[in-house]
Amino acid sequence: MNALTPLGMVSELPSENQTNANRLGQDAEAPKDYFVEREGMCFAGTHLLVDLWDAGHLTDPAYIDRALRDAALAAGATILHSHFHHFSPNGGVSGVIVLAESHISIHTWPERDFAAIDIFMCGACDPALSVPVLRAAFVPGRIEVEEKRRGRIS
Amino acid sequence: MNALTPLGMVSELPSENQTNANRLGQDAEAPKDYFVEREGMCFAGTHLLVDLWDAGHLTDPAYIDRALRDAALAAGATILHSHFHHFSPNGGVSGVIVLAESHISIHTWPERDFAAIDIFMCGACDPALSVPVLRAAFVPGRIEVEEKRRGRIS
Repeated sequence: MNALTPLGMVSELPSENQTNANRLGQDAEAPKDYFVEREGMCFAGTHLLVDLWDAGHLTDPAYIDRALRDAALAAGATILHSHFHHFSPNGGVSGVIVLAESHISIHTWPERDFAAIDIFMCGACDPALSVPVLRAAFVPGRIEVEEKRRGRIS
Repeated sequence: MNALTPLGMVSELPSENQTNANRLGQDAEAPKDYFVEREGMCFAGTHLLVDLWDAGHLTDPAYIDRALRDAALAAGATILHSHFHHFSPNGGVSGVIVLAESHISIHTWPERDFAAIDIFMCGACDPALSVPVLRAAFVPGRIEVEEKRRGRIS
């Protein structure tokens, strides 16, 4: 097909990510449903928006890559790919880790000691478990975390 | 340093992205400030959370890559890198485009005809201009857009 093909066909998500219900009924031939049922809600995934203020280590892409990998693993996620850019002249870093369960991204503004992170995870992963790892890595004076349930249908 | 080095030192952001003010004063030696001042507010960037329902073309990574690139360019962004994964057995796609001005990500649940997209852009880019491109590409029956101003300080 094209250059994307070799990246494709990642193995099935962990069985905990699946439910047996799907909109086409219980036919064994029907596609599986990867929406999550938890706490009485049905949704696609949990998206945390994490803002770090008065934070450190915001100009080192290798350090940031490692910190985000540790954060992903703490949440129980599977890392598929990561990519980071280092900007001049301010030293800011933009990067993303693509997960089997969605992604983590970061953008840093070292001139403001500020970083904006988002952690999107579906399935059985718990992105809240990433937050203490980020706190330890970047030692923010202040942290703001907002949780969104993406694709909520009930 | 390491394998990240060749990716680093991307050229300076467009001058429209910059302000002259910074927290260290107007010293020419001081680092530039990339926070945005707009509509009486000062913040790091605009983050759109876009949920598509009853959408099509959610199982084709090449199509999705192209659609997200078109959406990025419509907003005035500069594409640095893209990466997409195709999952089995449901055909879902996860992908991200890293921009000079932050990122666009997508995760699709074709068994629900649902896609969760986020568009994070700093500087002079306007992520709202990406939305009509996404609407044309995925023809959703319903679209929900939530706007967050990340790192808002005033």
